[in-house]
Amino acid sequence: MNHSKNITKNLNIGIAGLGNVGEGVINLLQKNSELIEKKLEKKIIIKGVSAKNRKKQRNYNIDTYAWYDDPIDLARSGDIDVFIELIGGEDGVALEATQAAIESGKHVITANKAMLANHGNFLIEIAEKRKTLLLLEAAVAGGIPIVKLLKESLSCNSTAKIYGILNGTCNYILSSMENNSIGFDVSLKEAQRLGYAEADPSFDVGGYDAAHKLSILSSLAFGTKIDFSSIHIEGIEKISLDDIQAAKEHGYKIRLLGISEKKTSGITQCVQPCLVSDKSLISSIDGVNNAIVVDGNFVGAITISGLGAGSKPTASSVVADIFDIANKSTVSNLGMPTNKMKEFKKIDEVVDNNQYYIRMLLPNIAGSIASVTKSMAEYNISLSAINQRNNGKNNTNDYASVSIITDITTSASVNKVLDQIAKNGQVKGIPTIIKIQQT
Amino acid sequence: MNHSKNITKNLNIGIAGLGNVGEGVINLLQKNSELIEKKLEKKIIIKGVSAKNRKKQRNYNIDTYAWYDDPIDLARSGDIDVFIELIGGEDGVALEATQAAIESGKHVITANKAMLANHGNFLIEIAEKRKTLLLLEAAVAGGIPIVKLLKESLSCNSTAKIYGILNGTCNYILSSMENNSIGFDVSLKEAQRLGYAEADPSFDVGGYDAAHKLSILSSLAFGTKIDFSSIHIEGIEKISLDDIQAAKEHGYKIRLLGISEKKTSGITQCVQPCLVSDKSLISSIDGVNNAIVVDGNFVGAITISGLGAGSKPTASSVVADIFDIANKSTVSNLGMPTNKMKEFKKIDEVVDNNQYYIRMLLPNIAGSIASVTKSMAEYNISLSAINQRNNGKNNTNDYASVSIITDITTSASVNKVLDQIAKNGQVKGIPTIIKIQQT
Repeated sequence: MNHSKNITKNLNIGIAGLGNVGEGVINLLQKNSELIEKKLEKKIIIKGVSAKNRKKQRNYNIDTYAWYDDPIDLARSGDIDVFIELIGGEDGVALEATQAAIESGKHVITANKAMLANHGNFLIEIAEKRKTLLLLEAAVAGGIPIVKLLKESLSCNSTAKIYGILNGTCNYILSSMENNSIGFDVSLKEAQRLGYAEADPSFDVGGYDAAHKLSILSSLAFGTKIDFSSIHIEGIEKISLDDIQAAKEHGYKIRLLGISEKKTSGITQCVQPCLVSDKSLISSIDGVNNAIVVDGNFVGAITISGLGAGSKPTASSVVADIFDIANKSTVSNLGMPTNKMKEFKKIDEVVDNNQYYIRMLLPNIAGSIASVTKSMAEYNISLSAINQRNNGKNNTNDYASVSIITDITTSASVNKVLDQIAKNGQVKGIPTIIKIQQT
Repeated sequence: MNHSKNITKNLNIGIAGLGNVGEGVINLLQKNSELIEKKLEKKIIIKGVSAKNRKKQRNYNIDTYAWYDDPIDLARSGDIDVFIELIGGEDGVALEATQAAIESGKHVITANKAMLANHGNFLIEIAEKRKTLLLLEAAVAGGIPIVKLLKESLSCNSTAKIYGILNGTCNYILSSMENNSIGFDVSLKEAQRLGYAEADPSFDVGGYDAAHKLSILSSLAFGTKIDFSSIHIEGIEKISLDDIQAAKEHGYKIRLLGISEKKTSGITQCVQPCLVSDKSLISSIDGVNNAIVVDGNFVGAITISGLGAGSKPTASSVVADIFDIANKSTVSNLGMPTNKMKEFKKIDEVVDNNQYYIRMLLPNIAGSIASVTKSMAEYNISLSAINQRNNGKNNTNDYASVSIITDITTSASVNKVLDQIAKNGQVKGIPTIIKIQQT
């Protein structure tokens, strides 16, 4: 019954990768050292570091830490208890060093969502065999402690659904388009100028980063193996200001959401732009913030939000994992021993029943809306709202932008009716279809 | 380095108090038993129960559990590892049983915020001496896992401020007044009819329940002893529909907030109705939900929200604590050993700089607003907005309801100028003053 810490020895760590997050971790451990020692009753000591360039100008002093040219040497060093992998990249040296650390019996902390999405099952299995911890709070949603929330606090719940805003870059772009009435390209450039988007933004705006995180969340929420490959991924590149403004007129905002849902036949995972009610809590998440909603069978819906990226918030998550190691956590790395986990069973999103937003350009002639709504009725799609905008930038004298909110239907039905409408020559170009997420 | 669970034995628990929450805990342990056993690799077994009336009609079967007429006998029983105190009441049998359980070496889980606010320091000290855990997730904000969030996930941060909506009854009443344009009394009656308010609602609407919770949050956030007695407490009884509507016209909602802030000279704790921007996340928290915002020096602002009361959400928090015990948590009960905690140092709220909302009835004659604003200027209070309502229910031909949003000032200055205005006979009755909380 005695759970007291009977280790008084300090915890020795090694940090591989001294980018933004590495700098944040070193700053946090220095600035909050007194508080940390009080709480843990031991010190956290940085024993060694490794990065590409020892000579790089840094705002902090690394001279008192042992320098390792090769992170794998640091990973294997007998001087450390914990290896912190902040190198990045889904394989290569990050993966090799992580594996080397585990195999030499070290605990590992990583912020590397790409590596976990692709090799997480393997890494966690070898960590279990070596009875070391592989902790990953920093890999999902920056400073938001969603991993521990799922793994421990809400772990006694059976979870039916988890969804959220998992990419700050996309959320900045979408909310800035809305708040400043600017197009996607302008908003992206502004995000790049502010350092919120990379020079090559495709990884973020294409939805891949959010999908890496979602694959980890699904495993934690449902007790299944990580299955990145089964995620349906759409980015935000095609979202226009016209869509954002039309959605607004219907009482919605557009957000890039990662959504995982457990059904009787399996699990759906998707990352896609969605409409969310402008009354919902998730719609109030602006800028680079992230938010996640977990729906448990006893706790109900819990929402947690905060900064989803950045040096300092992500450092908070890395050090939270150091605390768990210092406190001798015995919780399984993904909340459940891997031999108790189910294989991930994918089901297709199309069986889903949802409301949809559809926007299309219709000829500016009498009867064109009537004709489209008649086609919809033939496919048993009833309409919740319809709106013709006169200030859409694609409006001309010949065409008007018409947006529709359907009642609950399936994406298959929506696609069929839009094919029919296209065949009939009733519409110009390709209509936009966006799912409406119930919040 | 080996943190694996080397106990395979099951965890035996005793539950004292079979009200709403007790029923929820039994339901959860039964319904999610398979999931729990997979995750913990052991069973949680209810060995004994105690309640006032064994014969009471219940929706669940207690025949397989040993019955204890006296909860203190259950607390001392050698058959249990964990004593779950769901009796309630700040002292009396709840306190005696908790103390008895600790002194006989049991871990204790409690949902009893009144007992913790008043005797928490004492109980945690004796628990530390006996090296047992005294866990209290269920005592604050129902299903929201804010205790563990502060104690573990955000623990490496120095926290400057924590605030939130901590009482679902008040939040239901205020948001229903706003959404349905009804007065306080009507809204309270509706809350009572729905079971959201007690027959004697004074404990909730007077702010005392929120204050109990705030005293625990302050301790967790700042590493200080629990100090309930120093909390400045105001309830929502005086909030009128006129105030809610006037606030709305200025772009604000009214919420009962618990707020603790660390300043260089000490800590302020207060529970009071506040105006919050209708653009803020916290203003989107409607009905019986709770929400808490934590501001850490690295993580930034983290907001968590969900159901703040009820059988099932609170049961989720109780069982989360059982999980921590099963996982052999070594984290200090309030995140820091009590001998490392600082004594709570109170400072007065009045030194605070805030914006304020002021509503007053002014004579419906030329120059009365000019006269009031002149008085404000003399006291160096500059105005951010002023609004005269013509539909306030207290408006008559003789008086008009005028609401003012000040720039940043102090409550002392506001009180002084209002005294002056009253002396000048410029105002009818007593003006309403409500703090504006920056979000």
